[in-house]
Amino acid sequence: MNSDRSRPQLKIRRVHLDTGRENVIVISRESKALRPEIFRGFSRVELVCDSKVLLATLLITDDDALVSPDEIGLSEPAFHRFAEPVGSLVTVTPASSPESLEAVRAKIRGQTLSKAEIGAVINDLAHYRYSDMEIAAFLIGSASFITSDELLALTGAMAQAGTQLVWPDPVVVDKHCIGGIPGNRTSMIVVPIVAAHGLPIPKTSSRAITSPAGTADTMEVLARVNVGVEEMKTIVAACNGCLIWGGHVNLSPADDILISVERPLSLDTREQMVASIMSKKIAAGSTHLLIDIPVGPTSKITTATEAMRLRKLFEFVGDRFGRSIEVITTDGRQPIGNGIGPVLEANDVMAVLSNDPAAPRDLREKSLRLAAHLLDYDPKLRGGTGYARARELLESGAALRQMQKIIDAQGPSKCCTDLGNLAFDVKAGRDGVVTAIDCLRLNRLARTAGAPLDKGAGIKLFKKIGDRVEQGEPLYRVYTFDQPEHDLAAGACSADTGYIVNGHEVLQGKTVS
Amino acid sequence: MNSDRSRPQLKIRRVHLDTGRENVIVISRESKALRPEIFRGFSRVELVCDSKVLLATLLITDDDALVSPDEIGLSEPAFHRFAEPVGSLVTVTPASSPESLEAVRAKIRGQTLSKAEIGAVINDLAHYRYSDMEIAAFLIGSASFITSDELLALTGAMAQAGTQLVWPDPVVVDKHCIGGIPGNRTSMIVVPIVAAHGLPIPKTSSRAITSPAGTADTMEVLARVNVGVEEMKTIVAACNGCLIWGGHVNLSPADDILISVERPLSLDTREQMVASIMSKKIAAGSTHLLIDIPVGPTSKITTATEAMRLRKLFEFVGDRFGRSIEVITTDGRQPIGNGIGPVLEANDVMAVLSNDPAAPRDLREKSLRLAAHLLDYDPKLRGGTGYARARELLESGAALRQMQKIIDAQGPSKCCTDLGNLAFDVKAGRDGVVTAIDCLRLNRLARTAGAPLDKGAGIKLFKKIGDRVEQGEPLYRVYTFDQPEHDLAAGACSADTGYIVNGHEVLQGKTVS
Repeated sequence: MNSDRSRPQLKIRRVHLDTGRENVIVISRESKALRPEIFRGFSRVELVCDSKVLLATLLITDDDALVSPDEIGLSEPAFHRFAEPVGSLVTVTPASSPESLEAVRAKIRGQTLSKAEIGAVINDLAHYRYSDMEIAAFLIGSASFITSDELLALTGAMAQAGTQLVWPDPVVVDKHCIGGIPGNRTSMIVVPIVAAHGLPIPKTSSRAITSPAGTADTMEVLARVNVGVEEMKTIVAACNGCLIWGGHVNLSPADDILISVERPLSLDTREQMVASIMSKKIAAGSTHLLIDIPVGPTSKITTATEAMRLRKLFEFVGDRFGRSIEVITTDGRQPIGNGIGPVLEANDVMAVLSNDPAAPRDLREKSLRLAAHLLDYDPKLRGGTGYARARELLESGAALRQMQKIIDAQGPSKCCTDLGNLAFDVKAGRDGVVTAIDCLRLNRLARTAGAPLDKGAGIKLFKKIGDRVEQGEPLYRVYTFDQPEHDLAAGACSADTGYIVNGHEVLQGKTVS
Repeated sequence: MNSDRSRPQLKIRRVHLDTGRENVIVISRESKALRPEIFRGFSRVELVCDSKVLLATLLITDDDALVSPDEIGLSEPAFHRFAEPVGSLVTVTPASSPESLEAVRAKIRGQTLSKAEIGAVINDLAHYRYSDMEIAAFLIGSASFITSDELLALTGAMAQAGTQLVWPDPVVVDKHCIGGIPGNRTSMIVVPIVAAHGLPIPKTSSRAITSPAGTADTMEVLARVNVGVEEMKTIVAACNGCLIWGGHVNLSPADDILISVERPLSLDTREQMVASIMSKKIAAGSTHLLIDIPVGPTSKITTATEAMRLRKLFEFVGDRFGRSIEVITTDGRQPIGNGIGPVLEANDVMAVLSNDPAAPRDLREKSLRLAAHLLDYDPKLRGGTGYARARELLESGAALRQMQKIIDAQGPSKCCTDLGNLAFDVKAGRDGVVTAIDCLRLNRLARTAGAPLDKGAGIKLFKKIGDRVEQGEPLYRVYTFDQPEHDLAAGACSADTGYIVNGHEVLQGKTVS
């Protein structure tokens, strides 16, 4: 169907609909130029303007005020990606599926895909040529079984689909935590320590998707994080490190697309996790990598066996791509630090960097341990001295000064750093000892309270596992800004505090097996 | 998150967006009552109004003219399903996934599902609680492997999810073709023959989804087909049969939902085809069933082996549900009848029923053969006399009179029955014999010409396989109504007529193996 010549054209109109990632267009049921009913059964269409082509999902309207018959309405993502002015003329035809979908169907039938086939799938995916359903088809097809070669091909194709950073240094380090633990803002302490030592650590982080704060959300309390590739290079050249949001750097964009479909389906296989993380790290150009796998009853990985299998998969992929990789398991039984939510977490970070005696000790210890591993990658450092060196850099204030330098280089934050003014305390129902804290529940609670959108919303913990409490003593404080969030959060806490005191109750959800 | 009390409410507004099957709602990014950003990561929301609940997919808008901050915009399907007046107050909360999704995830991991699990999935699906992605997850999870027990559970659950018809007669017959062959409107001849004999044959048919005409589209040229359950019963009581659209009868609604996702993904496993067809037939209450599997290089089933495996699956499911089932394979190498498109096919049908000497012989013969199989189900008829009885009913005009009775009972058609006024002939490029006709290509061509929306658009065939042609002699005529369709169709024909004359070329697409 390429006789575009004979197809009347439609005028671009911008429709202020945020359709997430998916390109969506709207045409009138009465469209004079296009016969929407011809498209019954074709929900995917192809827009052409000069040599520019966009694949999109079609909606039909009966409302001329929204889109008139001679117009084509482009939703926000479609409008931005197509990047043609309002009023431009476009041709619309039913879209044929990307050819690479044949490989997806083969995968669903249980076949093994070649490197070229996986490359084609990822390339189409990264160029927004797949509908959500088609992405789901690929994910689910690969979820049941992928071979080691397929995993390598997938990781490599994803790493190549976006920006690929190259650094002049022989050793470029990076760290990554697989996530799931509230608080746990170690990167913001590790980066300044390692950078103060002199090793380059160009760190990009994600914003929260389902958690109450990503490292990028928390760093944004202290500095601007919306930094592009060129600026990132300048900052790293000046400071040895950075703490920016990955969104403008475009590392492994296919990963972001896959994640946006994995999440609502709660599909998370080990292989997909490894391909996701490693593709971003390979694209980021790091040579030496530390992966943190927290293990605990309510963290992503609940058993040592699971953690070991995941570790081996990371090592396998890291080795094949010629990266030095170290994978450590850490205590994931409870939140790290006292704050959950951007401002509260940033406070914890700055307290550790400032050697404040009241700073959370678990966050400080874990950060030092991670920094030590990374410093041990430095060939100039004597073996086994990484920890001492990390502590020296922290205690001397060198890490704090480096953090200030990074903040200055990235530019000032524009965020309000006030804590939520509607706060309430959640108290222990009995005397005893805290024996468990539900990470999933606290993450959800902080989100209900308004984090990460409200930077100052969240939870401040007063008690951790092993602490004695008396009945009526506060376990934690919840900060919110608005009555609805306050009431929802209070309701959630009265149903379940997320704390187990004395251990007589059984922790809901996952349990250690 | 069920403290609805504290959540401000939004006023329903109707948004004229046809989002297909999926429930979609639109809220303002500035919404005062609801904080859309809380929903980052929650693309699914739950609307509550009194005790009514609707699951929907969320879009966000910046356009107050579309949806203002105190409103919630319901797209057409959501508005109709929620069925609350404009201005009603609703509460919106992030939706938790239906519990049955856990079974879908288990299926993806390769597990076998119980009857109860499959029942829960189908029930949620039939109540529009699944997003398109979640439906795709179920389909793909089941596409790789399902057991015989799972297939039975799936078929049964689908049959039970909608209307279940019960007829007073001991023998209620039905026929079904798995589709793919242009023309092939045998049902419209078989039903009046069988009904004239006195066997009940309450036939519901689909409209075209990707083909140029479904039986419902073609019957609509002659009579009203939008008939509900009660009226259907009255018509069948009066005429022994009917030829109506299934859309208002709501047989196996889960099937329609699954198909709407299968199609764009081109997922079509034998098991899904059998569950789909059998669930509708079981729900329709027929006791004796005839399945027609056309086999040919460009039909859905290309080899005898494939046809046999499909036949056995139909027989297995039919037997387990206590239905008499007969499965026959028919010649699917080329279109049946001369017309492709509703009006042209209706003309073929009426020519056969009127014993017009110019009526297409293949359509007449195939219809008689199918009717014979169904008549042989009549215990009162002497074994082996079905064909003679069918021919007698056709040749005596009894079938035509019965068709007229059915048409009168269903009510007059409101369709225009003119043929497209912009027609052109496609001619043979050389002398020779027609050796192959591409069914897929002719289906697409008739659709490009405007069928089934334009009832009078389509293709009239002058030559079939085995016919001699001379260079320049017309192979077929294409009817269209508008210049764009005309030009697109002409372009498609000049690229490839879909005919092979003399057999020197290789037929594109599938080949017999």
